[in-house]
Amino acid sequence: MRELGDLVVDLSTRGDRATAVYRALLDAVRSGRLEPGERLPPTRALAADLGVSRTTVATAYDRLVAEGFLTARVGAGTFVADAARPVRPPRRGTDLAPRPGWDQQPHPTSGSTPKPAHDFRVGIPDARLFPFDTWRRLVTAELRVGAHDLGVYADPAGYPPLREALARQLALSRGVTATPDEVLVTHGTQQALDLVTRVLVAPGDIVAMEEPGYPLARDVFTSYGARVVPVRVDDEGLVVDDLPPSTRLVFTTPSHQFPTGPPLSLERRRALLDFAGRHRCAVIEDDYDSEFRFTERPLETLHSMDDAGRVLYLGTFSKSLVPGLRFGYLVAPEPLQAALRAALQLSVGYVDVPVQAALARFLEDGLHARHLRRARAAYGERRALVLEAVHGPLSAHLELVPCQAGLHVTTTLRDQEADDTDVVRRAAEHGVVVEALSSYAVTGRPRGIVMGYGAAVTESITPGLARLAAVLGAAPSTPPRRPR
Amino acid sequence: MRELGDLVVDLSTRGDRATAVYRALLDAVRSGRLEPGERLPPTRALAADLGVSRTTVATAYDRLVAEGFLTARVGAGTFVADAARPVRPPRRGTDLAPRPGWDQQPHPTSGSTPKPAHDFRVGIPDARLFPFDTWRRLVTAELRVGAHDLGVYADPAGYPPLREALARQLALSRGVTATPDEVLVTHGTQQALDLVTRVLVAPGDIVAMEEPGYPLARDVFTSYGARVVPVRVDDEGLVVDDLPPSTRLVFTTPSHQFPTGPPLSLERRRALLDFAGRHRCAVIEDDYDSEFRFTERPLETLHSMDDAGRVLYLGTFSKSLVPGLRFGYLVAPEPLQAALRAALQLSVGYVDVPVQAALARFLEDGLHARHLRRARAAYGERRALVLEAVHGPLSAHLELVPCQAGLHVTTTLRDQEADDTDVVRRAAEHGVVVEALSSYAVTGRPRGIVMGYGAAVTESITPGLARLAAVLGAAPSTPPRRPR
Repeated sequence: MRELGDLVVDLSTRGDRATAVYRALLDAVRSGRLEPGERLPPTRALAADLGVSRTTVATAYDRLVAEGFLTARVGAGTFVADAARPVRPPRRGTDLAPRPGWDQQPHPTSGSTPKPAHDFRVGIPDARLFPFDTWRRLVTAELRVGAHDLGVYADPAGYPPLREALARQLALSRGVTATPDEVLVTHGTQQALDLVTRVLVAPGDIVAMEEPGYPLARDVFTSYGARVVPVRVDDEGLVVDDLPPSTRLVFTTPSHQFPTGPPLSLERRRALLDFAGRHRCAVIEDDYDSEFRFTERPLETLHSMDDAGRVLYLGTFSKSLVPGLRFGYLVAPEPLQAALRAALQLSVGYVDVPVQAALARFLEDGLHARHLRRARAAYGERRALVLEAVHGPLSAHLELVPCQAGLHVTTTLRDQEADDTDVVRRAAEHGVVVEALSSYAVTGRPRGIVMGYGAAVTESITPGLARLAAVLGAAPSTPPRRPR
Repeated sequence: MRELGDLVVDLSTRGDRATAVYRALLDAVRSGRLEPGERLPPTRALAADLGVSRTTVATAYDRLVAEGFLTARVGAGTFVADAARPVRPPRRGTDLAPRPGWDQQPHPTSGSTPKPAHDFRVGIPDARLFPFDTWRRLVTAELRVGAHDLGVYADPAGYPPLREALARQLALSRGVTATPDEVLVTHGTQQALDLVTRVLVAPGDIVAMEEPGYPLARDVFTSYGARVVPVRVDDEGLVVDDLPPSTRLVFTTPSHQFPTGPPLSLERRRALLDFAGRHRCAVIEDDYDSEFRFTERPLETLHSMDDAGRVLYLGTFSKSLVPGLRFGYLVAPEPLQAALRAALQLSVGYVDVPVQAALARFLEDGLHARHLRRARAAYGERRALVLEAVHGPLSAHLELVPCQAGLHVTTTLRDQEADDTDVVRRAAEHGVVVEALSSYAVTGRPRGIVMGYGAAVTESITPGLARLAAVLGAAPSTPPRRPR
């Protein structure tokens, strides 16, 4: 850090020295410390004072002259331009208000908290397993000159070779038979939910969803003015008989109910498709986490049982790759494609084309399948440790909800009068981050503990869950009291 | 192309040979040409038949075994797995229908048409000017292991260093004073419009927009159930006196009206801010193309004149970089940020983090400014050629709408009873792609020709516009007839 009068130049930061000098001068002009008309020191003098080369200072001056902040007068030197008035401090207030329903805080993102010692958050994969070097190689190749015409607006449905690769991949791994024209590339599950709701749901329409269920789906439906009806789940998944007859859209997680775990039974699947046919209602099948199964063969998808084009199938790469890449897909019948693409084009447009092309190669060259095999092995090991604790030290307090897939294990509290949010809060004080089952339910029931193992360090699992058992064994810190 | 019975292996495509063999076998299994229980030829035999190495065939077999399509029985050979039933052909129909308003076709994307000989499309920059090598270097650096934690969900508002760089850049180039907390990173103008509408506009609300104006903005407002009121523009821009008193939101392009060109006069700017204050109405300032000005100093933004926090400022990098990168930003007062971020999180989430980081460096290291200087020089040259034609061969038919910025020139037809869409259609038959001014207006008036020069090859401009003059000089092919 060097100073020249008021000029503070931080030469320790990343980036070249000319940029550091440029920024320091710019800050001085914008803050009013260097005033319009003021003469700057000659480059040679400032360079000597700062201990940098004269070229460095000259480069900074040139840039500020080109941008209109300084003026150079031949023979007279360099001056702060008359037009370079200091900026006003930003305003803060407004009398504008969001319309009702939008005055909510965003859901906390996982990235906003430091990683806990015993990390059992739900829905976070292990980025350490991701083959970064391979991914970088693929992206770099697609960024070579001439690989893609980035000068035009691309197909809003997604890069065609990626849609072909996805259609092939879904047929292969999930028995989803779709043409590439039925596949839309999205920025993840959330965008797929948004597009479907936007196109199919009018304000006042009934949307039925599993209770407990996925909170961010509920919030999307509500934001479009839908009346969201929670429908209970049991050990066969969604209780189809409880669906209101006038339902316009059902949101379901058939391969393993989120967050409790059981798959939707074959009988219920048939009943749900019958219901959809009788009431001309649409069904969203969210096939989250289906890549991580720990049984022999995955169940068939609801989509593959649907002959009438009423199931819209969606999935994400946020778990099977990393959330930071933002990739998902939506499979929808051809007659809905024009509307979905119009909605996509009006709301966001498409994903960065070179990155789509890199993902297409990642799938087509078998690199995704290879990554999944490695990831499955690592997650299987962690899952076994969690189950060992659930059957061992935790078994006095928690009962396992059986489930063969995904990146988390769900349990219910044996004492349903105990407060799961209190357990979660006290566990966090001991460095153990788990989630309350009740937080996924608008009714606040059932109560239980959900333990993710995607992001957990393998060695931290057993000691972390031993601490959780201790917390469960201690008396609650406050009498259970829940708002409703 | 080699065949073995039904097996067709295309060894000419990109990707390795084992992948080609794998795909051919997989297609054969999935189509039912290889049936469950059928024995595959030994690797040595198939390798000899295909003229590939035995390892190549073994690799393909191994992958299919791992994926459950083949089973290997020790001593007996490799068989098609019993569970590998052929897939059903995809269905086509559905009885689901999009809700009213969404049964539209998406706007044609520029990418969907081959590049014409004389390309005067509006809003397309020249991707050949983009510094691809520099961009690839920046992205590659941000994709190195450990640069970003892609294992967590990032801040929906955008990568913090990019928001800081944008705040600095906007202050510098546009006098927009915003803290990084007031800046949201979006996937482009379209997403910014979508977020603002979602959060501020209820069904039935009045949104006023310039007529002629930006069609994709109109469509977003309409899709949320707004009543869109077209308000005429003159040579001082939006006619503020014509705004309906109950307007909830005004969409305007003050720095140069889109698509006609004039800036909003200082008097009108004051009147618009007064109007917004009296009626507690929000104003979207779309500062599109403001990077490309061909006068000494840009006008101050409306945002910088607004002391009450009623102007939401948005811009895009689709023109100053390339559309394929999908970057834009929204500056909004702090009290609206929670709602906007919640809307962003529910609809899409954030842009790929390493790419955001690359853009931050591109801005901070002065590479964007350098690119703009080069691009401005190239576009200035093309602009001069277009203006030369407008003042020369085209002047008998077209009148220039004066404008000092952007990537297109707007003209009106001297004969306002002539049909501009007919001119556009006939010009296209001669390889000259221009746009009809009336296509930007719901009233179909005024009529004129809009000529973009972002994507035009410099040498093609003068001959292309000579052809356009010939088309304008010829009699219309059909009598003018327009709906409305």
